[in-house]
Amino acid sequence: MTDPATTLHEILGPKGWLSGSDAEPYQRDWLDRYGIAPLGVARPATTTEVAAVVTACREAGLAVVPQGGNTGLCGGAVAEQSNAVIVSLSRMAAIGKPDPESGSIIVEAGVVLAALHESLEPHGLMFPMHLGAEGSARIGGLIGTNAGGSQAFRYGMMQDLVLGLEVVTPDGVVWDGLRAVQKDNAGYQLRKLYCGAEGTLGIVTRAVLRLYPTPRQQASALLVMPDFAAAVSFGAFLRGEAGEFLTGLEFFCDLGLQLALKHLPDLAWQLDRRGDVYLLVELASGSPRVPLDDILTSALERGVDQGLVLDGALATSGVHRAQFWRLREEQPEGQRLEGAQLKHDISVPPGAIARFIEEGAAICSDILPGVRINPFGHLGDGNIHYNLSPPEGRADFDGKAGQFGDALSGIATEMGGSFAAEHGLGRAKIAMADRNRGPVERELMARLKDAFDPQGTMNPGVLVRSPL
Amino acid sequence: MTDPATTLHEILGPKGWLSGSDAEPYQRDWLDRYGIAPLGVARPATTTEVAAVVTACREAGLAVVPQGGNTGLCGGAVAEQSNAVIVSLSRMAAIGKPDPESGSIIVEAGVVLAALHESLEPHGLMFPMHLGAEGSARIGGLIGTNAGGSQAFRYGMMQDLVLGLEVVTPDGVVWDGLRAVQKDNAGYQLRKLYCGAEGTLGIVTRAVLRLYPTPRQQASALLVMPDFAAAVSFGAFLRGEAGEFLTGLEFFCDLGLQLALKHLPDLAWQLDRRGDVYLLVELASGSPRVPLDDILTSALERGVDQGLVLDGALATSGVHRAQFWRLREEQPEGQRLEGAQLKHDISVPPGAIARFIEEGAAICSDILPGVRINPFGHLGDGNIHYNLSPPEGRADFDGKAGQFGDALSGIATEMGGSFAAEHGLGRAKIAMADRNRGPVERELMARLKDAFDPQGTMNPGVLVRSPL
Repeated sequence: MTDPATTLHEILGPKGWLSGSDAEPYQRDWLDRYGIAPLGVARPATTTEVAAVVTACREAGLAVVPQGGNTGLCGGAVAEQSNAVIVSLSRMAAIGKPDPESGSIIVEAGVVLAALHESLEPHGLMFPMHLGAEGSARIGGLIGTNAGGSQAFRYGMMQDLVLGLEVVTPDGVVWDGLRAVQKDNAGYQLRKLYCGAEGTLGIVTRAVLRLYPTPRQQASALLVMPDFAAAVSFGAFLRGEAGEFLTGLEFFCDLGLQLALKHLPDLAWQLDRRGDVYLLVELASGSPRVPLDDILTSALERGVDQGLVLDGALATSGVHRAQFWRLREEQPEGQRLEGAQLKHDISVPPGAIARFIEEGAAICSDILPGVRINPFGHLGDGNIHYNLSPPEGRADFDGKAGQFGDALSGIATEMGGSFAAEHGLGRAKIAMADRNRGPVERELMARLKDAFDPQGTMNPGVLVRSPL
Repeated sequence: MTDPATTLHEILGPKGWLSGSDAEPYQRDWLDRYGIAPLGVARPATTTEVAAVVTACREAGLAVVPQGGNTGLCGGAVAEQSNAVIVSLSRMAAIGKPDPESGSIIVEAGVVLAALHESLEPHGLMFPMHLGAEGSARIGGLIGTNAGGSQAFRYGMMQDLVLGLEVVTPDGVVWDGLRAVQKDNAGYQLRKLYCGAEGTLGIVTRAVLRLYPTPRQQASALLVMPDFAAAVSFGAFLRGEAGEFLTGLEFFCDLGLQLALKHLPDLAWQLDRRGDVYLLVELASGSPRVPLDDILTSALERGVDQGLVLDGALATSGVHRAQFWRLREEQPEGQRLEGAQLKHDISVPPGAIARFIEEGAAICSDILPGVRINPFGHLGDGNIHYNLSPPEGRADFDGKAGQFGDALSGIATEMGGSFAAEHGLGRAKIAMADRNRGPVERELMARLKDAFDPQGTMNPGVLVRSPL
C-alpha cells in the first residue's frame, strides 16, 4: 500500500501538496493557541480534487481539517493530531459573474471576502458582510463559522446570505446544492445547516450568495453616550425612526478608547467630549431622494433632548467617516497591544446589553479586583465582545481565565443569549457548550455529526467531542 | 397493558383527547387529497403533555402527526395510517409580552398568525410574515413548513425570523433552545434545521420570534406591464432605487384577473388599461421624513419612459390599497372557482422569471394544447405559483397532471430553482424530490431523519420516505 502522503501528492501535484516547512504557515491558529504539524497541507484546485483528497484521507484513516483564511478565534481550522491533513481552498478562488436581476453570484470557497467586495464594485452591487478580518477571511471559512459582523442585524449572518452550496461530504462525494433561490423548501435546509458546521460535516467548495444593490448615499455619526442604558434606549429608538436605513450600530467604551489612543499614536479622538460609551451609527439608502443627513440629525437631536446622547458629530467626508470607523475597528488592536487579554464572544437580547455589562462587571471584579473590562461590539444584535485586560500593573489573570469564562457564559445563557455569538465553538468552547447547553441539545448535535460523518474524518475535536 | 387510546385519554383529559366523530375535522388536508381516520387527536395544553404524548405513542408504536392550522398544500399534517395520533397545539396559544428593545417575543406554537399580528398592533411592533392563510395558519405549522409569503424577500422566511425554539424530540424529551438572539453559533444551527422539517424531527412547542417596528407610512401602486421581461427589469430597477422600502412586489397575469373578475362579482379592476402582467408594488418606511409617494411616483415615471410600465396608479387611501391587494389575493380563489386546477409552487432566480414562464408555457401547451396558464406570486424572490386550468370547455387535464409536474419541476431545477419553493414536500412531492435532487442530497436527508428519529415515529411518510 502506498503511503498516504504519496497518494495525496499524486492526486494534487507539487503545487497542491505542501509538507515539512512549506506546511508551517498553516499550522497554528490566529491567536497562536492551537495547532500541531499535520501530515501536510492539501491545496486542491477543483471540487473533484477536494473529493479525491477526502476519499484518500478517509481510506487512510487521516483526519481532514478544512482551513479558510485561518482568521478564526476558536482554533477550528488547525490540526491537533499529526495524522491529519489541512485542506486549504486558497487555489479555488474564482468569482462568477454577478446576476444583477436576481441579486446573486456564484463563488468558489477560497475567495477572500475583500476580493469579492472589490469585484462587485463596478457592478453597483454589494455583498453585505463586513468584519475586521475581511482582508484574509475566505468565503468557505465564513460559511463554516456562520460569520456575522457589523451588518448582521440588517442583512443577516452567512446563513441568511447563502442561497446554495456545493459540498464535498465526509464520504468524499459531491452534494450539488447550487441553487440560486431564497425559497427552496424541498426538504431539510441543508444549506443552512452547513453554515456554522465548522467543517465537521464536509467541505464547502462553492456557494451562491445573495447580493444587494450598493446604496447611493450614506450618513455616519459618532456619538457620546452617558452609559449603556442610554445606548440601548437610543438604539431601540433608531430602529423605529430609521430602521430601514440602519446599516451600522457599533459601540465601544472609554477604556477601549484610552487603550487604542495610547497604543496607536496616529489615532485621534474626533469629538470634544468623552463619555462612558460611544456609538457609531451608520445609515445608508439606495434612493438619492431620502434626506438621510436630516433624518440622522433629527434623531440625534431627539437623543440629546432626552438625555440619551451627550455629544455627537456627523461625518462630513469619506475621510472623516473612515476616522470614525477606525476608532471602532482598532478596539481589538489597542487592547492586544496593552498585553494579556481574555476574549468573550457574547450575545444577549439587545435590550439586555446594559444589564449584562453591569452584572458581568460586578462578577468579574469579584473574581479579580481591578480587572479592566472592555466591552465593544454590535449593539443592533446584542453581540458584545466582552474582553478583559488584567488590573493595571499586572501581566496576567492570576490563573482565573476559566472562572471568567464560566461566569460570563452563565449570565449570557441565563439571559437567553449565547457564549459563542459569532466566533463559533471550534476547539476552544466545546466544554463551555457542554456546560451551558444541556444534554438534549448536545446529544442532537452528536447524532447529527455521527449521521453525516460516521467515521469521524471531518475536523475531529471541533464543535462536538470526537468519539475517537 | 392498557390500550394506547386509554393511556392518551388519561394523559390529556377529556378536553385533550378527541376520537370518533370529534376527530373528523382534523382528518383531511386543506385540498382534500390526503388523510384517513387516525386513532385520535391529541390536544395537549402544555409542553409536558406534548412530551408525554410523544413518549406514549413511541412506546405503543403509533405514528405522531403534528398539525397546525391545517392549511398546508402538500398533505404533511394529516395521517395516512390508522395507527397514528394527530397532535394539534391549538390549546397552546399563549402570546408573550413583546420586548421592544430587543425586537423579540415568545409565543406558543398554537398561536394563529393573524392573532399575533393583532396582539402586536398596540405596541407599534410587527411580525413581518404575511400569507393568504394567516387567519388560520399557526406558528408551529409556519415553522414546520418554513413559510415564506409576500414579504420574504425583505424580511426573510420563517427560518430568518425564528431566534429560538422549544421542541419535543422524537424521544419525547424537551430541547430547550429558547434563546432570544440572532447571533448564536454554539454548534449546529438546530433552530434553522427545525424550520422546514415538517414535523419529522419533533414537535415545535414554543418559539422566540423577531419583531420589527411598524412602519409609519406606506405607498402602494398597481401597475400594468407589457410582459414578464418588463416586470423582471422593473423589479430589479426598483430594488436599486427603493430597495430598503420595498415590502411588496407581487405579480399576477391577465388570465388570473379575468378568472377573478368572472367569479367574484364584487371585485373591480382599478385601472383603465389592461396588459399581460400586473405588478403590485408596496413601499414602507419607519421615517415620516421620507418622501415615499415621490420616490414611488418617480420610479413609475422612469418605468413608463423606458417602456417597462404601460399604466399605473398609486393607492390614495387605505380602502384603495385594500382593493389593489384584493386583486392579487383573490387569484387562487378565482382560479379555484373556475374548476379543476393544478398548482405548482416554483421558484427560480428572479432574473429568470420571464424565461421560466415562456419555456414553461411552450412545454405545457405541448403536453395539452389549450391548457390555460395562470402564473402569479412573488416577483422579489422568484416564487411563481404556476397554476394551470384545463383548456376552455374541458373539465380535467386528460390524466396529464404528472407530466406537467415533471416538466415544470425539471425546468425549475435546471434554472437553479426549486419545485417546492414555499409549500414544502409533505406527502405530495417526495417522488418529485427524489427525481430532482439527486441521491447525495436525499441520502443526507434520510440520514438526518434516522439520526433524530430512529424509530420513525414522527410524521412518517412526510419529507423523506418512511423506512417502514
